[in-house]
Amino acid sequence: MHNIIEMRLQTLRQLMKQRELAAYIIPTDDFHSSEYVGEYFKAREYMSGFTGSAGTLVILEDEAALWTDGRYFIQAQEQLRDTSILLMKAGQPGVPTIAEYLQEKLQESVKVGFDGRTVTEQFVKGIAEKTDTKGITFYGEEDLVGMIWKERPKLPAEPVWELDVRYGGVSREEKLDAVREKMRLKEADVLLVTALDEVAWLLNLRGNDVRNTPVFLSYMLIGQEKVVLCVQEQILSEEIRKKLQTAGVELNSYDKIGELLGGLKPGQHIWVDSKQISYRLMHSIPDHVAIVDETGPVTGMKAVKNQAETEHIRAAHVKDGVAVTRFMRWLKEHVGTEEITEMKAVSKLETFREQMDGYLMPSFDPILAYGAHAAIIHYEPTTQTDIPLLPKGLCLADTGGHYREGTTDITRTIALGEVTAEERRAYTIVLRGHLNLAAAVFPYGVCGQNLDVLAREPLWENGLDYNHGTGHGVGYLLNVHEGPQNFRWRIREGDYVPLEEGMVISNEPGFYLEGRFGIRHENLMLCRKGEKNEYGQFMYLEPLTMVPFDRDAIDPQLLTDRELALLNAYHKKVYDTIAPYLEEDDLAWLTKATEEIVRNA
Amino acid sequence: MHNIIEMRLQTLRQLMKQRELAAYIIPTDDFHSSEYVGEYFKAREYMSGFTGSAGTLVILEDEAALWTDGRYFIQAQEQLRDTSILLMKAGQPGVPTIAEYLQEKLQESVKVGFDGRTVTEQFVKGIAEKTDTKGITFYGEEDLVGMIWKERPKLPAEPVWELDVRYGGVSREEKLDAVREKMRLKEADVLLVTALDEVAWLLNLRGNDVRNTPVFLSYMLIGQEKVVLCVQEQILSEEIRKKLQTAGVELNSYDKIGELLGGLKPGQHIWVDSKQISYRLMHSIPDHVAIVDETGPVTGMKAVKNQAETEHIRAAHVKDGVAVTRFMRWLKEHVGTEEITEMKAVSKLETFREQMDGYLMPSFDPILAYGAHAAIIHYEPTTQTDIPLLPKGLCLADTGGHYREGTTDITRTIALGEVTAEERRAYTIVLRGHLNLAAAVFPYGVCGQNLDVLAREPLWENGLDYNHGTGHGVGYLLNVHEGPQNFRWRIREGDYVPLEEGMVISNEPGFYLEGRFGIRHENLMLCRKGEKNEYGQFMYLEPLTMVPFDRDAIDPQLLTDRELALLNAYHKKVYDTIAPYLEEDDLAWLTKATEEIVRNA
Repeated sequence: MHNIIEMRLQTLRQLMKQRELAAYIIPTDDFHSSEYVGEYFKAREYMSGFTGSAGTLVILEDEAALWTDGRYFIQAQEQLRDTSILLMKAGQPGVPTIAEYLQEKLQESVKVGFDGRTVTEQFVKGIAEKTDTKGITFYGEEDLVGMIWKERPKLPAEPVWELDVRYGGVSREEKLDAVREKMRLKEADVLLVTALDEVAWLLNLRGNDVRNTPVFLSYMLIGQEKVVLCVQEQILSEEIRKKLQTAGVELNSYDKIGELLGGLKPGQHIWVDSKQISYRLMHSIPDHVAIVDETGPVTGMKAVKNQAETEHIRAAHVKDGVAVTRFMRWLKEHVGTEEITEMKAVSKLETFREQMDGYLMPSFDPILAYGAHAAIIHYEPTTQTDIPLLPKGLCLADTGGHYREGTTDITRTIALGEVTAEERRAYTIVLRGHLNLAAAVFPYGVCGQNLDVLAREPLWENGLDYNHGTGHGVGYLLNVHEGPQNFRWRIREGDYVPLEEGMVISNEPGFYLEGRFGIRHENLMLCRKGEKNEYGQFMYLEPLTMVPFDRDAIDPQLLTDRELALLNAYHKKVYDTIAPYLEEDDLAWLTKATEEIVRNA
Repeated sequence: MHNIIEMRLQTLRQLMKQRELAAYIIPTDDFHSSEYVGEYFKAREYMSGFTGSAGTLVILEDEAALWTDGRYFIQAQEQLRDTSILLMKAGQPGVPTIAEYLQEKLQESVKVGFDGRTVTEQFVKGIAEKTDTKGITFYGEEDLVGMIWKERPKLPAEPVWELDVRYGGVSREEKLDAVREKMRLKEADVLLVTALDEVAWLLNLRGNDVRNTPVFLSYMLIGQEKVVLCVQEQILSEEIRKKLQTAGVELNSYDKIGELLGGLKPGQHIWVDSKQISYRLMHSIPDHVAIVDETGPVTGMKAVKNQAETEHIRAAHVKDGVAVTRFMRWLKEHVGTEEITEMKAVSKLETFREQMDGYLMPSFDPILAYGAHAAIIHYEPTTQTDIPLLPKGLCLADTGGHYREGTTDITRTIALGEVTAEERRAYTIVLRGHLNLAAAVFPYGVCGQNLDVLAREPLWENGLDYNHGTGHGVGYLLNVHEGPQNFRWRIREGDYVPLEEGMVISNEPGFYLEGRFGIRHENLMLCRKGEKNEYGQFMYLEPLTMVPFDRDAIDPQLLTDRELALLNAYHKKVYDTIAPYLEEDDLAWLTKATEEIVRNA
């Protein structure tokens, strides 16, 4: 057995016993439902030894189990092997959910514990509903892992910096006024903002507390008269404090948000989102306060980029296009002549991006997957998995960067040499879907769920598909994945919104053949207003990403006339946009890469 | 002034005064929210003189107003001209809804009346919510129009006939068992069925009480032990009574349903649908009964046709294909050589249908619209509007029939001679949409809202659109419009369902240019299972309608290769299917009409 893990489990069980807890749940989550988390928040990894980015550990008196998803089945099996922890392959037939497991294992009227800051109100509600015959109660007051984790990393506390209004486009004062307007419509006296990207967007501030994401740990409580920002005060410079004061923003400690909520007055209305708010904060709100439980107003406001933001985003994509184009040329020309592994390619691409003015950091952990690795949708090369690239087959690179002008996210599937007929066919079919969605014209009101079929139909008509969404929103120097817009076909109650002018959305159909190869073609696009006439306000999608698709893997015979014309038009636009920033061999390569493709007669 | 209408209004106002009613609402609706209603139910027409199929009259102490939709603005203006009734053009800017109007006009704490059998619970709830500051109460106990309408037609009471299980496919006993199974899942002791097509479907019975629809006035109350059918008993033959008795169905009077509901026992759970149940019936349910308010189980069961039904539906469409094809030939060959008006064409088409074995009646009021008339989406020719057809331009025919084997609904837009370049282009663009939707292949789970874009994109990319849904379900010898499936892009909460194997759905994109012409291409399609593989259970759409599209109005240059292939494949299928039933000139015409279309090089 893995002695350290077993010892930690035993210690935790003693703490559970003292508190009469029949179960303790440990997710990997910070206090803000962030997609990526810092080292401080890796309690589940500390307790189980499993290092994957997603997983929840449930500890009972005499057993423990860990839920993770398909990306991590093999890794989790390996890392849990010498422990007493059972692996629960979430979503597989016969595998219970956490709620079903608790419903089966627990006695009646027992207490279930967790650190109430790391689970959402919605998560706990879901468990409560599925176990309602058991009369379970919940205890979210204490972080038991924190009590036994001696060398826990510090809570991140990186300096905050200001995003000049030249980049943000709208001042923090104007943003706060607009939020208050929306609060009045809902008759909300107070709005609680818990999502870190929403705080950063509202205040035109950025930080560095979360991996791949320039945000800082904080909460905001917005009233009609005053605004309180709860933050680790040492991360704010004197200059920023002053500016916040000018904007009417009071400061308070990061850990005081619960007390502030507890001090709300009888009859007040607070607007919170139970999908985002933590269990602990939800239960800090006194019973005499009325709760408006809905998606907050900032989500939609942040998703619609203003003119300053869209202009900068275009500029960021020119820079990123130059870097990724250089990388494509380097990779295709050097593979086979020198030893390049997946990880080395990642670091080379990072070097190309770093050469661009205003580049800050990757916007997510880069996926660079060669051959069969590319069929693993969330593959990230590590020292354990890294393999050399050979001058044949396909290499999938899904990467992105934060620039001072905005955030990029691009996938290109690159032919490193000969590709098989099967790879070429699949590459072209996926490209058809990408081109058809990119060319969509639609009246205002249409949602991503209406358009997803355009990307999938070329696959569906061949009996193929891909098991992920076709597109997500992208923040402005914030989260690389943001809502509320998306492209997917499953319609979920309350989860469909019209595509608005100014929204940025990805277009990334794919195809994955296990053990063989994987393909994805991803551009970011900007939703724009087109013609307005008696039939409505028509909308269209402007491509932001400016990098050629690798013609070496395209079968032009499989493209319709329209698709071929769309591809050639995109390549011409790429050339016109980034050629001015390329020189000599890079320029020559781009010229060839974007040449008009003609179909054999 | 129009003396008769004014006198009726005055008499009604006296009755209102005696009951202290500040307003009285008169819709055109039967007791079952049927789409079409019989003469007995035309109270709104009696009180206002307006004969349109949709409209609601609201009478106040000193004014009255009538709401109707865009189809009827001109007609209503004409018919209300000499009355004191204001026309409210529903949906036009600045026009209040009924609830807004009442909110503005009424004093506080007044009473609003209506015949509670003719409005749904949902309608009244909607008014209550929008006027909640006024403290209005509702009075639905009396049919005031019935008290003053001396020569009111009798309640329809046509004989009921049995649909042999050979056509119905599943016995009434099996259907009742399946319903009870679904009731148990919802823990409902009793299910109230108020929709006439649901009663008819459940009992494999048909009637003739509603225009264009072979159903009969009735209610059903289904318990786990017994079933009660409330019906005008004289419409049942001795034989049918016996069969119902065998199936465990008790009979009671049509007007006793309220009393039966009133007799439900404390603690019982009843399943009703507040979108369908009348205000009166909803309020007949005692407070001690728990209400499960959801779409009933029959809606979904009825929409999924069983094998016997689908086989018969195909047969009905062969017959209808023969009739409509003969009509197309007759119309195209005779226009210009003899006087044919819109109404004469309708009656000729009816004659062709009547020649087919098993034909019963039209499934809706036929739309046959020539030239600019076709731009009026719901145009039905009347003696006032009828015009002669000339040997040029386009004629739109949207008609359908009930056969013993099922129900048809088809639209063909027919070139009567020369068509303009604009008409030809629009005709072809709409046809592209029709063909693309018809060719959809998709995994199980996909809803109509996901696919609608396939029909509209050819229009949208040209900045065009049509202001109606793309498709609706069709009953089996029941309502020509049924849910829950549909093709439209607007996603409404709770109103999207996966397309199931066995569902029949129409595919009817269109284009309408006011004052000029109108185009619609409509086939019915059957949803079927295709390949099942690792990506899911794929589904496809089989065309049921078997009539050529008029090649004289098609511009093959505007079709893609794929669309041209789809059109030619459909025409080949039409030929193969109906040629065996045609002779001589009709056969020769069909042969030409379905010949392969080739594009000029």
